[in-house]
Amino acid sequence: MLVFREVVSEFVKDHDAFKWRGGSLKSEPDHLAVEEPLEIRLGGRRFTLTMRTPGHDEELAAGFLLAEGFINARPELGEIRRIRDAKGAPEPNAIDVILNVPAAGLRERLKRNFTVSSSCGVCGKTSIEAIERRIAPLEDGIRLGGRALFAMPSMMRKAQEVFSATGGLHAAALFFHGVRVNGGEGSTAADGANGSKTSDGELSLTVLREDVGRHNAVDKVIGFALMHDMLPLRNCVMMVSGRLSFEIVQKTAAAGIPILCAVSAPSSLAVELAEEVGMTLVGFLREPNFNVYTRPDRIVAA
Amino acid sequence: MLVFREVVSEFVKDHDAFKWRGGSLKSEPDHLAVEEPLEIRLGGRRFTLTMRTPGHDEELAAGFLLAEGFINARPELGEIRRIRDAKGAPEPNAIDVILNVPAAGLRERLKRNFTVSSSCGVCGKTSIEAIERRIAPLEDGIRLGGRALFAMPSMMRKAQEVFSATGGLHAAALFFHGVRVNGGEGSTAADGANGSKTSDGELSLTVLREDVGRHNAVDKVIGFALMHDMLPLRNCVMMVSGRLSFEIVQKTAAAGIPILCAVSAPSSLAVELAEEVGMTLVGFLREPNFNVYTRPDRIVAA
Repeated sequence: MLVFREVVSEFVKDHDAFKWRGGSLKSEPDHLAVEEPLEIRLGGRRFTLTMRTPGHDEELAAGFLLAEGFINARPELGEIRRIRDAKGAPEPNAIDVILNVPAAGLRERLKRNFTVSSSCGVCGKTSIEAIERRIAPLEDGIRLGGRALFAMPSMMRKAQEVFSATGGLHAAALFFHGVRVNGGEGSTAADGANGSKTSDGELSLTVLREDVGRHNAVDKVIGFALMHDMLPLRNCVMMVSGRLSFEIVQKTAAAGIPILCAVSAPSSLAVELAEEVGMTLVGFLREPNFNVYTRPDRIVAA
Repeated sequence: MLVFREVVSEFVKDHDAFKWRGGSLKSEPDHLAVEEPLEIRLGGRRFTLTMRTPGHDEELAAGFLLAEGFINARPELGEIRRIRDAKGAPEPNAIDVILNVPAAGLRERLKRNFTVSSSCGVCGKTSIEAIERRIAPLEDGIRLGGRALFAMPSMMRKAQEVFSATGGLHAAALFFHGVRVNGGEGSTAADGANGSKTSDGELSLTVLREDVGRHNAVDKVIGFALMHDMLPLRNCVMMVSGRLSFEIVQKTAAAGIPILCAVSAPSSLAVELAEEVGMTLVGFLREPNFNVYTRPDRIVAA
């Protein structure tokens, strides 16, 4: 228990809770998943604010910018800096991204790409059609034996340490098929990163991220891949805990990932977008069953 | 099964899925939770776009405007109109709200209140402090015997018909304590509305709404209450499926609701905001246990 607390202390806050046990309340120590705002600036100017689980903020910013179409490739990312306060100390909840995109091009992208979010009440906007237009159709890419998919949930569970403690986080994980790909950083399973330790022959876990926001976990995974120059992720499978919304499909497609799996159900619009971009969408992945909603040709009997 | 499909057909879309059963894929009919964009306009001008489960769009718009601080009371809501296309037919995914707020005051509110959303990647912004400042501290309001809370999840389940079919929706429900309150419309339990049928003596279910977006379900519940002039909801308990994020606490507090319960865990920021505004926050409500994170004085032993 103590070991666990050390590993993920930045994700967990202690807070006494009053627990109803047998007809009355008793105060006991408890853990909360940390939720904090992150302000993302572009070249020093306020750009967006998102509530997120602290940690991997650079990946979150990078993945967000790619997944939402503000950048298209690693060289456009430029530099990511911590904002510093008056005394020069880094601000824990603000980050600045210097893009390598000409100003005119960036203005155009800003205008075009302020997208909607499936679980978002207050959003800049363009139409669904605009989102569909800017995502390139996915390549045929990999073929997978159906049984290979069942290895993913247990590999994710092993790498998910925060979730088991607080019950409050979403997870997203990237799996490579076939050739092992260098994860880039010397991270451990406790970090939720390098998959060399949890390979299953067919699919290996390359990176896992958790967050209070479902889409943040996906952005962090994509940001990791972008920062390690792995895009497009033709030979990959993305797996998320929970539901599949439009937005998760959109972000996954932006990274070129041809197969997206979830433990739970997809929405109608998630299925429509997957169909449009040629993505294989798998829901209710719970051994020994799963459902394929689009492009079942990538999943072969075995 | 056919009866069910009639009742909630607007929420469910048929889509054949390929189901992995015993080593290969078989095509079978399946249902998807419908997700569609709703454009909310203010006085004809584009204001925001949210992905939502169609239905109760007026409530969604009204609740959103109240919960985010753009309006404060029923008289300011003015009129809600369907947008019509060139042929005069109503657009299914666009709505226009005419506010009774002077233009100067509205501009100020727009500037001040573009808030963050816990599950939102692309947002207008102000600071957390600004949100805390504009929410009035909650009144002491009700005292509840702890056992009364256990009745809520089963009352919600009974009213939740879509969820059981698609597994893809979040739910929010408003419970009144003590006096029965007129729900206002002649809705049925199948509509997920009137609680006279599912009262438990202490708490009665007044309205339940489901949505692909957790916060949309809460906005619809609050919008229902606003449109029926029930605010502030001093004698009420809000219950949501899933997690408790900052944003859910913020919206519930804006409606004056002193007790917020969830099946799952709260985030750290949810607990901080609840503490700030004096809300009783209950998590992991699963008979025979629950946890109270803030203001346990409203929950009495019994």
